[in-house]
Amino acid sequence: MYQYEDDSFMLHTDLYQINMTEVYYNKGMHERTAIFDLYFRSMPFENGYAVFAGLERIIDYISKLRFTDSDLEYLRSLDYNEDFLAYLEDLRFTGNIRAVEEGQVVFNNMPLVQVEAPLAEAQLIETALLNIVNYQTLIATKASRIRQIAPDDTLMEFGSRRAHEFDAAVWGARAAVIGGFDGTSNVRAAKLFNLPPSGTHAHAMVQAYGDDYEAFKAYATTHKDCVFLVDTFDTLRSGVPNAIKVAREMGDKINFIGIRLDSGDIAYLSKKARMMLDEAGFHDAKIIVSNDLDEVTILSLQSQGAKVDSWGIGTKLITAYDQPALGAVYKLVAVENDAGELESRIKISGNVEKVTTPAKKNVYRIINKQTGMSEGEYITHYGEEVNTGTPLLMFHPVHTIKRKLVHSFEAVDLLKEIFIDGELVYKSNTVEEIRERLDYNLSTLWEEYKRFLNPEEYPVDLSRELWQIKQDLIEDASNKKLE
Amino acid sequence: MYQYEDDSFMLHTDLYQINMTEVYYNKGMHERTAIFDLYFRSMPFENGYAVFAGLERIIDYISKLRFTDSDLEYLRSLDYNEDFLAYLEDLRFTGNIRAVEEGQVVFNNMPLVQVEAPLAEAQLIETALLNIVNYQTLIATKASRIRQIAPDDTLMEFGSRRAHEFDAAVWGARAAVIGGFDGTSNVRAAKLFNLPPSGTHAHAMVQAYGDDYEAFKAYATTHKDCVFLVDTFDTLRSGVPNAIKVAREMGDKINFIGIRLDSGDIAYLSKKARMMLDEAGFHDAKIIVSNDLDEVTILSLQSQGAKVDSWGIGTKLITAYDQPALGAVYKLVAVENDAGELESRIKISGNVEKVTTPAKKNVYRIINKQTGMSEGEYITHYGEEVNTGTPLLMFHPVHTIKRKLVHSFEAVDLLKEIFIDGELVYKSNTVEEIRERLDYNLSTLWEEYKRFLNPEEYPVDLSRELWQIKQDLIEDASNKKLE
Repeated sequence: MYQYEDDSFMLHTDLYQINMTEVYYNKGMHERTAIFDLYFRSMPFENGYAVFAGLERIIDYISKLRFTDSDLEYLRSLDYNEDFLAYLEDLRFTGNIRAVEEGQVVFNNMPLVQVEAPLAEAQLIETALLNIVNYQTLIATKASRIRQIAPDDTLMEFGSRRAHEFDAAVWGARAAVIGGFDGTSNVRAAKLFNLPPSGTHAHAMVQAYGDDYEAFKAYATTHKDCVFLVDTFDTLRSGVPNAIKVAREMGDKINFIGIRLDSGDIAYLSKKARMMLDEAGFHDAKIIVSNDLDEVTILSLQSQGAKVDSWGIGTKLITAYDQPALGAVYKLVAVENDAGELESRIKISGNVEKVTTPAKKNVYRIINKQTGMSEGEYITHYGEEVNTGTPLLMFHPVHTIKRKLVHSFEAVDLLKEIFIDGELVYKSNTVEEIRERLDYNLSTLWEEYKRFLNPEEYPVDLSRELWQIKQDLIEDASNKKLE
Repeated sequence: MYQYEDDSFMLHTDLYQINMTEVYYNKGMHERTAIFDLYFRSMPFENGYAVFAGLERIIDYISKLRFTDSDLEYLRSLDYNEDFLAYLEDLRFTGNIRAVEEGQVVFNNMPLVQVEAPLAEAQLIETALLNIVNYQTLIATKASRIRQIAPDDTLMEFGSRRAHEFDAAVWGARAAVIGGFDGTSNVRAAKLFNLPPSGTHAHAMVQAYGDDYEAFKAYATTHKDCVFLVDTFDTLRSGVPNAIKVAREMGDKINFIGIRLDSGDIAYLSKKARMMLDEAGFHDAKIIVSNDLDEVTILSLQSQGAKVDSWGIGTKLITAYDQPALGAVYKLVAVENDAGELESRIKISGNVEKVTTPAKKNVYRIINKQTGMSEGEYITHYGEEVNTGTPLLMFHPVHTIKRKLVHSFEAVDLLKEIFIDGELVYKSNTVEEIRERLDYNLSTLWEEYKRFLNPEEYPVDLSRELWQIKQDLIEDASNKKLE
């Protein structure tokens, strides 16, 4: 019923994108160059920074973009006309995409992806791009937030069973590792993205044996590395003592990594279990916990002195439970006019923060040369020079009296060329490289932006020139209203 | 980097499933028959019922289940031994699956999927089954909840851009239509599952033209059915007047369906827009709204007298924003013992509601013959007779004094055979058939179970025999603890 040999992601878009494309095509506007910015308006989880992820999937999506026979057949059944379908049949992505790299720290209201392409093509890819970035950036950010709370512990992603269908499980696992997790339980994600896989056994195995001892012994005689799940029947009376018993019996034949707790009062049980392990001489045995954890429960357990070495995080991470949507948008900022010139465009809204920032842009990170730390993002009109030889005035784009002069700085261009004229020009990074990028970029952020609660607002400023373009277009639109 | 020609879903599982399978294999237990129940413990959104979805995807997943060369190669790289890999290479699903049908109303603590298969096979499929059911059932339930609030309005799923990656967008769209939505904006979902696609144009088109009138006119001269998005610049001063102007100019050349509002004070704007449309003689023109809606905002808008005919629901539906995880689990309830007999198993927990109900089961819905309404679910030990000739005692499995006698009833077997000995024996339904099933089943539920807030708790009772099996195993486990 839903099986098409040639199913593609070309139709993974909202119907209105195709209707608009048809309008553009019929009106001869489809080849006009348009520029769209992809960005989000408010920080997820009220965190001080976000972690960009999704580029790898975007590259794959754009590279394979074309209407298959069954896609066209389906559109034909919706009564699109043959001329238009013939145009779609030949459609490929021929434009430019610039984007922030994965593992980059990013902020609200800065362009993360910039698409410059024939209007029709730029419009058709909106839905998929948002679908990808909204999810992956959300999870990478959540993971990084948890990593900040537990900098030295092992963090494992365990959420596949609660993820929103298959893609979320695997791309979410990858995003979690990008954000700072050490591995994932999802074997397919580990295979696809070369992530460290993690896992031992479940309650079902202990139930199948009907007994902790028999189950642990069976595991220990078939596996070198052993973590025993101790809470199937009774953690302190049966689980932990039997884990210790099997570890003693097996001696050097196994690598007794430790025990796992998946229910009950983790603070109490972990302290008791630690004592029992220590008394038995297993000082190096780790205590791994799981059970609806997130950064808040970890903080609480830490403050109670829980003895935990490793955290398995499922539901709350993979679904971004406390804020399951990022809300990134994709807005037209410039389009070729009848005279063939690129013209900046704005969208006005009653909500001030929803007014778009027009024009083709560059996004710079201003690094203070004295401190090596970031002073904020500085967004310019594309082509505008940033003179690093003179002090730079940075000011808040709404509350313009919040301003500072930066004297000695470097301006790092954050938007990298990904596609030029439809050709992929970017070399993908491994997840390891992406994590190194994140570590480096986090090191350039003051602690005030990284704290868990009530972080400072990181500056995302407009150049004087870009700010003026925006004011002028707001003015124009307001005057039009009064006519 | 993540491109394997032969990528499969076989590794879409947690690593511990493979480790346990290895234990079973090495210990010669992998062929023992095991029975697992898939169920959830608490009602999503505190709703009075849930809507089951996911079976279609399960059927596809199980049918194609096998380790590919690259899957095996990957496991080899993790140091699994060759004997075990040879066993995996030949592994197919050879067991039985019984499940509730899609569109069935379901409740906490009733088995939704029952897997009876060789222990290894049953274990390996756990993660994917939960991944599928947890998401799709959650979204179908959320959609049905919204449908209860707006029984006569048009409801469209608009969430692709905020869904958790691609699979969630398409399977979520399908689940939304199962739950009562009229269509989706996702064209690929519409194609794959034969759902009604929906959409017109976005702000970008109005921005591209720079003017409401020009944009609407362009749309109207290229499309018969027209909905104009009126809030790009100024809803009441530009958007609505220009929509009316174009509708008048085009007359019978278009089908002026109506206008869409996507921002601002919907209650106020919809009432004003209704007046303007009516004054212009467009009494049949619809008002379609979108903008972070869910059942609560719809209720609020209704109570303010908003004039809305059609709702486009995105983020809050497709991410199940207020509760983004269902929390279904998959628990071993019986396993073949050394003597080759099926033995019921339990998992004890400090949390009473987490204690599993052991044994292979049947799940009946008790329909009162006098009223035609459901009296509740009645779960029996498999093979136990339900005598419809004598009154049936139904009692709450925890608060056993909550009891009733049902005199004249029908017992409807809810678990249908899906796979027998690995063979698919179930004929899939169309989404339309699934919706009819939901409509019928909702009609057998008293209003008390369907209300939006504080619904009554629907009875999910155990037969006397099954209840006793559970008590005995709890007793056994408790005695073991005291030893």
